[in-house]
Amino acid sequence: MSTRDEDPLVPNEINEFNSNEAEVINVPTAHNKIGNWRKQNVKQVEALDYDEVENELFIREEVETSPRQLTAINIQRWLICIAIGIMTGITAVVIDISIDQLASLKMSALEDSIKECVQETCLWRPLFMWIGINTLLVAFAASITTFFAPVAAGSGIPQIKCYLNGVKVPEVVRLKTLFAKVSGIIATVSGGLAVGKEGPMVHSGAVIAAGISQGRSITTGITTPLFTHFRNDREKRDFVCAGAAAGVSAAFGAPVGGVLFSLEEAASFWNQALTWRIFLCSILSSYTLNILLSVYHDHPGDLSYPGLINFGQFDSTYMLQDLLVFFIMAALGGMSGAAFNALNIRLMKYRMTYVKSRIFHVLEACIVAIVSGMISFTLMYCNTECKPLGQDPMKLQFFCSDGEYNVMATLLFTTPESGVKSLFHDPLGAYSCVTLVAFVLPYFFLACWTYGLKVPSGLFIPSLLIGAAWGRLVGVLLNTILPNSEWTQDLEKYALIGAASQLGGTVRMTISLTVILIEATGNISFSLPLMAVLLIAKFVGDLFNTGLYDMHIELDHVPVLDWEPPPLSGCFKAKQIMFHPPITLNLRACVKDIVQNLSKPGCNHGGYPVIDDRGKFHGVILRSQLLILIKYKVFQERESIGPLPLSVFRDSYPRFYSINLLNVSAAERELHIDLEPYVNPSPYVCHEDSSFPRIFRLFRALGLRHLVVVNDDYRVVGIVTRKDLYKFGEHRDNVISGQCSH
Amino acid sequence: MSTRDEDPLVPNEINEFNSNEAEVINVPTAHNKIGNWRKQNVKQVEALDYDEVENELFIREEVETSPRQLTAINIQRWLICIAIGIMTGITAVVIDISIDQLASLKMSALEDSIKECVQETCLWRPLFMWIGINTLLVAFAASITTFFAPVAAGSGIPQIKCYLNGVKVPEVVRLKTLFAKVSGIIATVSGGLAVGKEGPMVHSGAVIAAGISQGRSITTGITTPLFTHFRNDREKRDFVCAGAAAGVSAAFGAPVGGVLFSLEEAASFWNQALTWRIFLCSILSSYTLNILLSVYHDHPGDLSYPGLINFGQFDSTYMLQDLLVFFIMAALGGMSGAAFNALNIRLMKYRMTYVKSRIFHVLEACIVAIVSGMISFTLMYCNTECKPLGQDPMKLQFFCSDGEYNVMATLLFTTPESGVKSLFHDPLGAYSCVTLVAFVLPYFFLACWTYGLKVPSGLFIPSLLIGAAWGRLVGVLLNTILPNSEWTQDLEKYALIGAASQLGGTVRMTISLTVILIEATGNISFSLPLMAVLLIAKFVGDLFNTGLYDMHIELDHVPVLDWEPPPLSGCFKAKQIMFHPPITLNLRACVKDIVQNLSKPGCNHGGYPVIDDRGKFHGVILRSQLLILIKYKVFQERESIGPLPLSVFRDSYPRFYSINLLNVSAAERELHIDLEPYVNPSPYVCHEDSSFPRIFRLFRALGLRHLVVVNDDYRVVGIVTRKDLYKFGEHRDNVISGQCSH
Repeated sequence: MSTRDEDPLVPNEINEFNSNEAEVINVPTAHNKIGNWRKQNVKQVEALDYDEVENELFIREEVETSPRQLTAINIQRWLICIAIGIMTGITAVVIDISIDQLASLKMSALEDSIKECVQETCLWRPLFMWIGINTLLVAFAASITTFFAPVAAGSGIPQIKCYLNGVKVPEVVRLKTLFAKVSGIIATVSGGLAVGKEGPMVHSGAVIAAGISQGRSITTGITTPLFTHFRNDREKRDFVCAGAAAGVSAAFGAPVGGVLFSLEEAASFWNQALTWRIFLCSILSSYTLNILLSVYHDHPGDLSYPGLINFGQFDSTYMLQDLLVFFIMAALGGMSGAAFNALNIRLMKYRMTYVKSRIFHVLEACIVAIVSGMISFTLMYCNTECKPLGQDPMKLQFFCSDGEYNVMATLLFTTPESGVKSLFHDPLGAYSCVTLVAFVLPYFFLACWTYGLKVPSGLFIPSLLIGAAWGRLVGVLLNTILPNSEWTQDLEKYALIGAASQLGGTVRMTISLTVILIEATGNISFSLPLMAVLLIAKFVGDLFNTGLYDMHIELDHVPVLDWEPPPLSGCFKAKQIMFHPPITLNLRACVKDIVQNLSKPGCNHGGYPVIDDRGKFHGVILRSQLLILIKYKVFQERESIGPLPLSVFRDSYPRFYSINLLNVSAAERELHIDLEPYVNPSPYVCHEDSSFPRIFRLFRALGLRHLVVVNDDYRVVGIVTRKDLYKFGEHRDNVISGQCSH
Repeated sequence: MSTRDEDPLVPNEINEFNSNEAEVINVPTAHNKIGNWRKQNVKQVEALDYDEVENELFIREEVETSPRQLTAINIQRWLICIAIGIMTGITAVVIDISIDQLASLKMSALEDSIKECVQETCLWRPLFMWIGINTLLVAFAASITTFFAPVAAGSGIPQIKCYLNGVKVPEVVRLKTLFAKVSGIIATVSGGLAVGKEGPMVHSGAVIAAGISQGRSITTGITTPLFTHFRNDREKRDFVCAGAAAGVSAAFGAPVGGVLFSLEEAASFWNQALTWRIFLCSILSSYTLNILLSVYHDHPGDLSYPGLINFGQFDSTYMLQDLLVFFIMAALGGMSGAAFNALNIRLMKYRMTYVKSRIFHVLEACIVAIVSGMISFTLMYCNTECKPLGQDPMKLQFFCSDGEYNVMATLLFTTPESGVKSLFHDPLGAYSCVTLVAFVLPYFFLACWTYGLKVPSGLFIPSLLIGAAWGRLVGVLLNTILPNSEWTQDLEKYALIGAASQLGGTVRMTISLTVILIEATGNISFSLPLMAVLLIAKFVGDLFNTGLYDMHIELDHVPVLDWEPPPLSGCFKAKQIMFHPPITLNLRACVKDIVQNLSKPGCNHGGYPVIDDRGKFHGVILRSQLLILIKYKVFQERESIGPLPLSVFRDSYPRFYSINLLNVSAAERELHIDLEPYVNPSPYVCHEDSSFPRIFRLFRALGLRHLVVVNDDYRVVGIVTRKDLYKFGEHRDNVISGQCSH
């Protein structure tokens, strides 16, 4: 995603026009004092429209709908959710098995080479071989992401958060993004980067949902006659909710967490029927993964693989005195997470300034792969800790005597998941303090450098790995201090709490992520301390900065609306934040006017207020509707053409035409369009004296894209868009400093 | 709660007036066809107002608020939530320990008596003794509920659902209700009724929250100067959310489930800061209970009592082939739950018709206590199954030889919780088919009769007990058919799934209740089948009727709004459902007019539209505000009195004066009040052509109480209240049959 220096939405001439007109509508002086807010940087994206267009065509269709048809549509909704759940589960299985195969291929090749070379002092050979393989894999992932689907970079959770919040991030739910995401994450995880495979599943689930529910794919150009009813923002977003939930469910084995994630991010109020569909979708996704992975791992019927993550069985219990230790660890995790975020964002800003070209993005990813490989190799080489090899086939000998294994290699050479598992469950004494410190410090910086590269990458696993390592370290230290106390013998609990604290401090767990973590660790007896720890980590972290996902969203200037209006903003009115004078259309609109308005440079409003012949507000017509009306030349003077059916509007969703590509002859420009059947009549409006918090809540609760502002005569005086709210909200410092005490 | 035959809100003269005026505002003919809906029965309750009154006083206070004061208010919010959590936990402990003590007192007294009498054939003595004690306890509970706090009857979950939905059920969060609830539930559970102690905790938590957050108690008349800022519907409801969550958390050991319960029922959109406070409150409640109960049970520091329910450790695993059995059981549970609901509601209707006097309510409860005792005694007496007594001190000998225990007594004589635990965990062979059938059938009817009595009673445990019994029966039967198969050896899973199915079929688990059940059983490995089973049970049950809580709410005609507007209602407009002509007030209102409007019989609107001197809509003033203005005689002609400060309004919350008790002299009636500083300016409005679904969503998402309807001139043409939406929604049959195809 990129940012721009100027905001093309509000060009200078309109801004000037704006202030010239200020007297006419009695804008108080405060407006000018804080007028700068409109120049706020904001990403050039469209907003989703969650409000139904209840025009004549819609009502007519509704009246003609029989209860049986309604049932049929409802059954389709359930079927789609079933399909989304199963497909998402299968996708997760494909990712998991591919990584498993690639990793074991790489591992066996390297281990042989190292065994040979330890004796023959040709250590450069496995080193180069390893780094070579890793770099190739990462280069592939970076290229496919950079050149083919840039939006597939990162974990995808911020992008899905934006989408569910109501912002159309371009290409975010396209099939090619899915391909890039899936193949990319397989390559980066196998390529030994400090990333997890879980985060990208959320994005994958969302793409699958969008594809299935629309019955078409823009990337491939395939359009089926299925599910045409669902081709609008509202329905699509509901299904994307289900897909994201299925993704979370498959990734973390957390069906409830998935449902909560979607509901929390979607933020419109809780709809019970939708919730049940999302729930079913989540469950199916987890079941599908479970059954297929059980078969793959030769335990059919065992069903012990609910998610991609599998942290094994926890047998720990905790005592009252543990809680104090846990809470201190939580505070540490909050600080460590905040440090991670601050460092990562500094790097991102640096990257945005200096690493602009696409080829540099690929290069940077390769450099990280090489550095990761070299650091890992050095650490394993310098490792002084060799332990007797038990029955565990996963332990690697690497530079140790026969019958022993290299402790550092357990953390660095296998997949990060198995590292986390080992830190959680290995007995007391498996890791020395030195090994843990030597591992955690470089890995922290590596993970920090890695997240933000132009490759698909999950943040969960690296955070858990870092946290589990220092959590275990705390346990080892406690055990050194109190070697005979029974309650310091068990390191599981400290590793778990460390992992949770670090993750909580980084992403600032919301309630959904808390449930995800509890479900992922499969440990309900630890749910109380886990929740308390996440709460403390969030509180401490929030003293320094916000969560990493939110920081990335903010960095991109995506107009995501916060949960609540900024405090103390009750004195600001609609007339101070609205875009005015508004561009209105007449009910019987001249084609010339429409074309002129639509092609006005920099004025790509999503909707236009329509006024009747008395000049009163009548309704809203969307830009997309106008484009279709012109494209199909539905001119009033050519009476043979009746009103366009709704299906035409649904079919052209979501790719609408560009006004510049539509061919409108000079003669046609003089004709008229009767907007009456298409206009969304009596949508939500607000009075020009309505307060900012009131408008904000309306947008947030109902998923609005724009709101028409009327005056005492029910005439249109302006329009408020999501971007206005975002920009104004960003200037909350001005707001709090009491600018409105006029 | 009671219902009325006529709706005093819309007296006949207004209804007639209504239809006389129909032509004036161009109401389409469809209105008359479906005009009957206004006669819909609806409970005479007030609605909560979640919309902030942003009047001049409010804005002035906000402008004068420094960021430090804002922080102080925020800290107070957190402190209150901490207090709510701890107090709710303590209340749960009080309930638990009291029941424990009473039950063991009763038990030891009876066992001695039975031991004596088995030999001496004086069995009538313990029988009478038992029934006597039970009846006394139940009579106490029924009397305190009926005469002192009628709203304390039942589980309280329906009442809290109503409150969070936005309906002020009278006295629902009063201190006396808490006393009745707590002492009542102790008595009913100890009195051997088929009830659980968990449901009432939700209600108790809510009352505690309301009390603490308001810094006052109406029952005791104590008012502290604390927390005056929070004395309004909006803040109070937020805290009640937290209290309800804390109640769920303490009852079921389900902090996450508690948070979800509150969020789901409150239904306004997800507010993150509030969620975190609720979360903390939930956690603290569970911790408090855990620590105190650990101390009580002599395991300080062990922390293994997260909730009142404790179902012990599950070691089961399930196989793929189990799923089919589970799903069939789920369908059975759905049907059994639906049967329970249908029977219970039929009983309730019968009770509402014939058991009207208070004394009869107490009598009925006593009869149920006697019948429960007699049935239990008969079953234990007729029981043919005696098993060798192991180490378990909880097993009772009753009519069995020495060294053996009475199997039936395990289910019937101890608390229902221990019955559930025994059904879950006792080894194969502990219960025969005959015992299970002999237990489950009478208990089903007893539980059905009991829920709805005028005593505090929880529904969870009886449902779980019924389900666990028939679930175990399924397991025993399967084991008889396939005695050698390994997967039928373990009955735990069948009992658990049976319990979940029955509960799901009865209350129709929403997602929050699913999480509650998972947390309560403390078994995350069963979360997938549990969710699937609850989904199926809900689906099957929904084919027959709705959940029991919802049925009770519907029976009471409480105007609770559904999640979504009824389907196919898009063609209905505001002008068809609004109350018109509206009663409006002028900005400079004559006291005479105000008094006249306020005292109009049957017209107790919560708010009145205020119009300016041009007749345009200016804002809304609440009935409560008007009453205070008159009470304090804030008349314009007496210039010495400035505008009343906000604190006066907060202090009089929530007990406002009655218009008939206010003394307004004839001279004062001619004076005027300037409403300008008090009016809520530019609240949400809708146009008379706005569609029904649009208005419904506005109400639901923003927690509105009333919505002013304006026309093309921004003049008030009507007002829509929650009751109008409810009544109209109830007539959805008319809606679906396409009445609007005019």
